[in-house]
Amino acid sequence: MTKETMTGAEALVETLADCGVTACFANPGTSEMNLVTALDGEQRIRSVLCLFEGVATGAADGFARIAETPAMTLLHLGPGYLNGGANIHNAKRAGTPMVNVIGDHATYHLRYDAPLASNIIGLAGPNSVWIKTAETAEGAGALAAEAFEASLGAGSGPVSLVLPADAAWNEGGARATPRAKPVRRKVSDAAISAAAERIRSASKPMLLTNGAGLLDEGLASLAKLEAAGVRTMSDTFVGRQARGAGRFTPARMQYFAEGAMKDLDGTDLMITAGTGEPVAFFAYPEKPSRLVPEGCVVLDLGGRDSDVVDTLGRLAKALAAEAAVDGMPRKAPDVPSGALTPSTVGQSLNRHMPKDTMVADDGVTASLPVFLETLTAEPHDWMMLTGGAIGMGMPLAIGASIARPDVPTVCLTGDGAGMYTVQALWTMARERLPVVTIVFVNHSYRILNIELARTGAGNPGPAAKNMLTLGNPEIDWVALGLGQGVPSFNARDAGEFDRVLAEALASDGPTLIAAHIDG
Amino acid sequence: MTKETMTGAEALVETLADCGVTACFANPGTSEMNLVTALDGEQRIRSVLCLFEGVATGAADGFARIAETPAMTLLHLGPGYLNGGANIHNAKRAGTPMVNVIGDHATYHLRYDAPLASNIIGLAGPNSVWIKTAETAEGAGALAAEAFEASLGAGSGPVSLVLPADAAWNEGGARATPRAKPVRRKVSDAAISAAAERIRSASKPMLLTNGAGLLDEGLASLAKLEAAGVRTMSDTFVGRQARGAGRFTPARMQYFAEGAMKDLDGTDLMITAGTGEPVAFFAYPEKPSRLVPEGCVVLDLGGRDSDVVDTLGRLAKALAAEAAVDGMPRKAPDVPSGALTPSTVGQSLNRHMPKDTMVADDGVTASLPVFLETLTAEPHDWMMLTGGAIGMGMPLAIGASIARPDVPTVCLTGDGAGMYTVQALWTMARERLPVVTIVFVNHSYRILNIELARTGAGNPGPAAKNMLTLGNPEIDWVALGLGQGVPSFNARDAGEFDRVLAEALASDGPTLIAAHIDG
Repeated sequence: MTKETMTGAEALVETLADCGVTACFANPGTSEMNLVTALDGEQRIRSVLCLFEGVATGAADGFARIAETPAMTLLHLGPGYLNGGANIHNAKRAGTPMVNVIGDHATYHLRYDAPLASNIIGLAGPNSVWIKTAETAEGAGALAAEAFEASLGAGSGPVSLVLPADAAWNEGGARATPRAKPVRRKVSDAAISAAAERIRSASKPMLLTNGAGLLDEGLASLAKLEAAGVRTMSDTFVGRQARGAGRFTPARMQYFAEGAMKDLDGTDLMITAGTGEPVAFFAYPEKPSRLVPEGCVVLDLGGRDSDVVDTLGRLAKALAAEAAVDGMPRKAPDVPSGALTPSTVGQSLNRHMPKDTMVADDGVTASLPVFLETLTAEPHDWMMLTGGAIGMGMPLAIGASIARPDVPTVCLTGDGAGMYTVQALWTMARERLPVVTIVFVNHSYRILNIELARTGAGNPGPAAKNMLTLGNPEIDWVALGLGQGVPSFNARDAGEFDRVLAEALASDGPTLIAAHIDG
Repeated sequence: MTKETMTGAEALVETLADCGVTACFANPGTSEMNLVTALDGEQRIRSVLCLFEGVATGAADGFARIAETPAMTLLHLGPGYLNGGANIHNAKRAGTPMVNVIGDHATYHLRYDAPLASNIIGLAGPNSVWIKTAETAEGAGALAAEAFEASLGAGSGPVSLVLPADAAWNEGGARATPRAKPVRRKVSDAAISAAAERIRSASKPMLLTNGAGLLDEGLASLAKLEAAGVRTMSDTFVGRQARGAGRFTPARMQYFAEGAMKDLDGTDLMITAGTGEPVAFFAYPEKPSRLVPEGCVVLDLGGRDSDVVDTLGRLAKALAAEAAVDGMPRKAPDVPSGALTPSTVGQSLNRHMPKDTMVADDGVTASLPVFLETLTAEPHDWMMLTGGAIGMGMPLAIGASIARPDVPTVCLTGDGAGMYTVQALWTMARERLPVVTIVFVNHSYRILNIELARTGAGNPGPAAKNMLTLGNPEIDWVALGLGQGVPSFNARDAGEFDRVLAEALASDGPTLIAAHIDG
């Protein structure tokens, strides 16, 4: 597209396309109309309409976890940002790059405090790793390039670019040249040598990692470290993990503090690479916050801002760790029968997931058994809820599937979590995405029934129990799916689920399976 | 309930109950478990589970608009606040008091930056009229009393009380005595006299109001002012307006700036009472932001913080305005027939709404015809989208109905707006609320098709048009309603709608009607 003049919105959109943005997840409003028409003229970016901003931001997260380059979102002023905020929180915790473009009132209109005006910088600041306002059409292109770079910088994550309506519609915009892609910092040789020395003298050393450390190259180094006597572990929740047949799978940090501490018992050296010191998800009376055994030395070998793949490779070399423990074998279970449980769901997924399937996991209590049963499935990628804000699974699956439409995406979600962003189903149908959404139906916030006891909040009375129960009325997930254009099925025993899943994974469009694990 | 000792959570909940809180709209998580059990022990507060925090906050808004006293919400850390944020924005714009109780990590756990940690004060600050953290169990009761008072203060609106988990579970809490209910400021005699003087010498005076000025006592004064030659008007969007048979209805400020300016042509005096100067909802190229004719004097007779009912009464007295224009007659239209349109929906509502029906209006483009057709309906209350963040209608209806379950609540929403908080239907079913949700199905963000032209964003291409269209796939609202336990019906012509509506309004539980106005 060559034009004599362009608007600020056009400059912003074309610059982001030049930077490599290929997807925009959007729920636009009046103040974003010029962005909508600019996107219309930019063939390199696929615009995906979402019926709620939380779907758009979760999808941008899923997209970047798979594509390894940011998508953009289009949000409608402060309330649009707020609606997308919980999944931006999750993305920030995953370190996912994302360019959130937030429309605002025209600069001269702001002083009148119209109904939709709000303090966007204030609202969006805490969960943005970079935030600026493009006050003029002239500056919009350059700020777009800066925003894209910032999202990939040392503290990679969501950035916020506020675009007032007049900066969007005025002429005078100019495409900016993309900036160089930031490179992650390398850990010093001295630090690597010191860590190797510590490992040699430790009696029970372990290494905790996350991020790119859990993709193929990092895993290969972990397998060597494991063979050399270092126990390797991943954080409890990870942004993306390559796993399945042929791949090494590190141990996983347990969710509950008491389990984690027991598991770590005797560990005298903990090296963290590409992550930080492990902490309990929540505090509980009389339970520890910091998941480090007494007397254990913690060695920081680079946080999320470092090149963890490089670190792991150099550490393995420093330890002369050349042999590697074997990758997982491909081992499919028999067709399950009897009651449908999270474990039998996992067995069916193991049987039927084709190579390179992507799993978006927001399944809360049901997830762990599925995770364990799929260790020997075909090679696949697993994406988790990194920030604890439920309602991420279906949006994440949308984004992953847009990033890689040639393989299926499986979404694991609960009836509690799924209802948060249930509008996501519509976008799956509209874009004909090969996403299989598995909703674990147990008619409760089951995690909270567990947590109620653990927090020592006392025996729940009827009103308290009622607050954790979703069974009155029961939610008909098949109706919710069909009502949004997604072929949807109930599965009430293990054999039925296995059959439905096989068909769903063979489909080139979306399917919803309500997995009744309530007995 | 008398106890020797109580937790911080119990002190908070019991103090709010002592203040007069009778409803809590909640979506709790682990960090709120002690609040859940405290609510279990507090019989004066009805706990209502919502499947998404935006439903909870919108419901609290609707509750307070009808009950005229705040409800509480229970939100799960920063992401819970973000999910509820758009409807808190709307509530802030309505000046609705609301006590948002936001659980947080235990104080000593915050330093570890666990996955759900975030800067809650930063996120919630911009849309809170008061925000504090109860750092200790000992202080929780006193802060609850302060929060309740603050929500009703001069700048009434949503307040945020952050309760860390340890302050919730620790013993040492103490109930605090409720504070005196804040009284609104009265405008000075001099200001009233000066305004009366200005009115007498103006050739075309008008008075703009909102808030309590639109309830019965204020309306009675407006009717006298109108009879005395002052044109009375309400803001375009109002929190709550009493209307229908027997009541005076002021003119309504038009939404689009060009229409509003034409309507105000010749106005040489604009008095604002209980509101501020009118401004355009959005800015558009070459259109005004400030809706005041050139040369018109604007006289501020007290903003939202003032006692507008008192102001209007005293102004009428100062003008010796004793006669009042007549209230609306009760005039029901004949049963409509033919195509279903927003106007025929309004005619049917006029025919069937019983006295004191409450209307929660999030219908965007479809609302105005309904509003106009119901001027002569039985007396009823109308609540509007005050902050422009769509997705408020169904939540608002829940809250209104909990506040006043003896009469029906009607929710007007669009297919675009309705999908934002579609989970609200489940709470309507669970609580068996007599709410009739009317979804205007036109398979588009119709307002945006209008706005696209008005912003001069150019002719939309196929990708842009696609971003404003909801028809692919079509949403089956009956399935979405039934799937959540709400009896649901399609209406495809005016006669059918009229019959279904009559039955729905006679039901003691919820109904959804998909009103197909797409021809």
